[in-house]
Amino acid sequence: MRSPLCDAFGIDYPIFAFTPSEHVAAAVSRAGGLGVLGCVRFNDTEELERVLTWLDDNTDDKPYGVDIVMPMKIPTEGTSVDLKAMIPDEHISFVERTLLQLGVPPLPEGEGREGVLGWLHSIARSHLDVALKHRPVFIANALGSPPKDVIDKCHEHGIKIGALAGAAKHALSHVENGVDIIIAQGYEAGGHTGEVASMVLTPDVVDAVGPDVPVLGAGGIGSGRQIAASMALGAQGVWMGSLWLGTEEYRGMGNNSEAWETAFTRATSSDTVRTRVYTGKPARLLKTKWTEAWAEDGAPSPLPMPLQNLLVAEAHNRISAANDPDVISMPVGQIVGRMNEVRPVAEVMADLVSEFEETVRRLDKISG
Amino acid sequence: MRSPLCDAFGIDYPIFAFTPSEHVAAAVSRAGGLGVLGCVRFNDTEELERVLTWLDDNTDDKPYGVDIVMPMKIPTEGTSVDLKAMIPDEHISFVERTLLQLGVPPLPEGEGREGVLGWLHSIARSHLDVALKHRPVFIANALGSPPKDVIDKCHEHGIKIGALAGAAKHALSHVENGVDIIIAQGYEAGGHTGEVASMVLTPDVVDAVGPDVPVLGAGGIGSGRQIAASMALGAQGVWMGSLWLGTEEYRGMGNNSEAWETAFTRATSSDTVRTRVYTGKPARLLKTKWTEAWAEDGAPSPLPMPLQNLLVAEAHNRISAANDPDVISMPVGQIVGRMNEVRPVAEVMADLVSEFEETVRRLDKISG
Repeated sequence: MRSPLCDAFGIDYPIFAFTPSEHVAAAVSRAGGLGVLGCVRFNDTEELERVLTWLDDNTDDKPYGVDIVMPMKIPTEGTSVDLKAMIPDEHISFVERTLLQLGVPPLPEGEGREGVLGWLHSIARSHLDVALKHRPVFIANALGSPPKDVIDKCHEHGIKIGALAGAAKHALSHVENGVDIIIAQGYEAGGHTGEVASMVLTPDVVDAVGPDVPVLGAGGIGSGRQIAASMALGAQGVWMGSLWLGTEEYRGMGNNSEAWETAFTRATSSDTVRTRVYTGKPARLLKTKWTEAWAEDGAPSPLPMPLQNLLVAEAHNRISAANDPDVISMPVGQIVGRMNEVRPVAEVMADLVSEFEETVRRLDKISG
Repeated sequence: MRSPLCDAFGIDYPIFAFTPSEHVAAAVSRAGGLGVLGCVRFNDTEELERVLTWLDDNTDDKPYGVDIVMPMKIPTEGTSVDLKAMIPDEHISFVERTLLQLGVPPLPEGEGREGVLGWLHSIARSHLDVALKHRPVFIANALGSPPKDVIDKCHEHGIKIGALAGAAKHALSHVENGVDIIIAQGYEAGGHTGEVASMVLTPDVVDAVGPDVPVLGAGGIGSGRQIAASMALGAQGVWMGSLWLGTEEYRGMGNNSEAWETAFTRATSSDTVRTRVYTGKPARLLKTKWTEAWAEDGAPSPLPMPLQNLLVAEAHNRISAANDPDVISMPVGQIVGRMNEVRPVAEVMADLVSEFEETVRRLDKISG
């Protein structure tokens, strides 16, 4: 399984693994793919610094990437305290009431009040500054084109820029803004996602940006057959996120590993929901009592980004600490239906590659 | 492009074309695929009789299929008049008000008051009785498993039964009920559709039903690349509906051909919506001022099947007669974004096959 992206990045397989876990990212890179570390969780740049140093030391000199969350237009931004003042009381009391109903206890005094600040532009920019002191070969931006100075700075460092797109017109504007690689994220993906499914979106984006811009297929990809399908649609590689949430290396992220494992192993592909409750923008999450509560009659409408994330930040920490498989707040794609056991990354990677090769041989027979 | 389905049905390509037009169905069968005539539009069984006789005479002795709309459980069913009494006044006045606002004129006296009755079980059963007097090789049921006696009767006639499924568990129960072929209809499809996208649904269904039950991939398929992707996912063939709405042979169906051509050629893949306004069950339609009106605050919630279809039946006839590209009520999948010109079926078929072969050669190179 080789595409021009393998040569461009010095990787064996054009499999890009988006993950918040440095252990997963390192294992994917060591296995011949490109591990891409999600930075949004790092409120503390010193922690990111330590983690990237660890990645430098644990990837056998193989390349890796990072993922930041940065809008192109620099927003007017207050402190977390200023922003919190904009959250209506109705929303705060709904969250509190819902957690009570779902049996999610409060946190011990002094713990976990802080939300994820990586959604704030200033924090995302500090992630970039830290990353540039290390050796990422690829920086992906979850919110589309990053600001022009960021693109220029990365290019000066020889780093390629990727941006997520959920529609062909967005992909085109990313290319005009200087983005090198488009991640065409279909409706079935976990996390932020549009309404066009990968089967339609991937060729739409591939044809819109033309042969000189590599496209990664994202959304609905968790097996070698799905990688082959994405490449049949014109992708030069794939961007996978959910699958790694079911690996041994992911264990230990957060403190609700057990609940999460129970929840994802029993989920079917119908057990996700695209909702604004996680960040304020539509994102696909595991369907649990938490997401269902927001879908009930009388529930408030989620707030816009970044307010919604601040609203639910403490709730997420409480939910995580409660470790209850019925009450989970986790972005995951429709492939969760096939995440039925926890395996080491190297084994997952080997299976992806061999199933891909097997699929191409099967298509050869159909082609005759 | 050959799969075991080609031998089973005596066709050259495992391309199943669902269409309300006998001209499209015949052209697909003549070009080596399997044309499948949608029967729901035939209120008058004598008309269906005439059309199937025409199909018998115009398919160069190639096989064809028919599609019926029949729930497995036989519902208690009143006449159209009884059912109409169950429709709330609020809904009737909303439809009338909306048509007025959208500039859709009333029909001339005495014309087009009747809705599509094919959604009623008794009518669907009469379609079957007529079909059995002709030579269909395949009968597909849009509402899942047909009643057992229908399956048995078809099998006695040597006819294979197909059923649409939007989730693996539905596919499994169809197989238990005696269905021969599963049509895995993904979220991106036109018409009735579930929430799981083809990229995830197709392998889910293929693995659930096992190697002895052929699966047709449906939803998001309008090109040879998409056929290759669907087969990479494990489908033995494809079921395509929307694509044929943009063929020369389809022209002349209904009386708003011009408006429809304008509407679909300008639509992007983002210009569809999954809504209950067409039949009462979620179905993907072209997004127009008509579907948008139902999505506005204060619009009534669509009624359950079959009431919603009766409610909007006259509206559909008025909309069709008005021939306005901004006000269309038409099921179509997300591939509408690539339906940009009207072409003859034979040309479309030839392109599908050659792009499929080209795609397999490209994958061979990636596989190395």
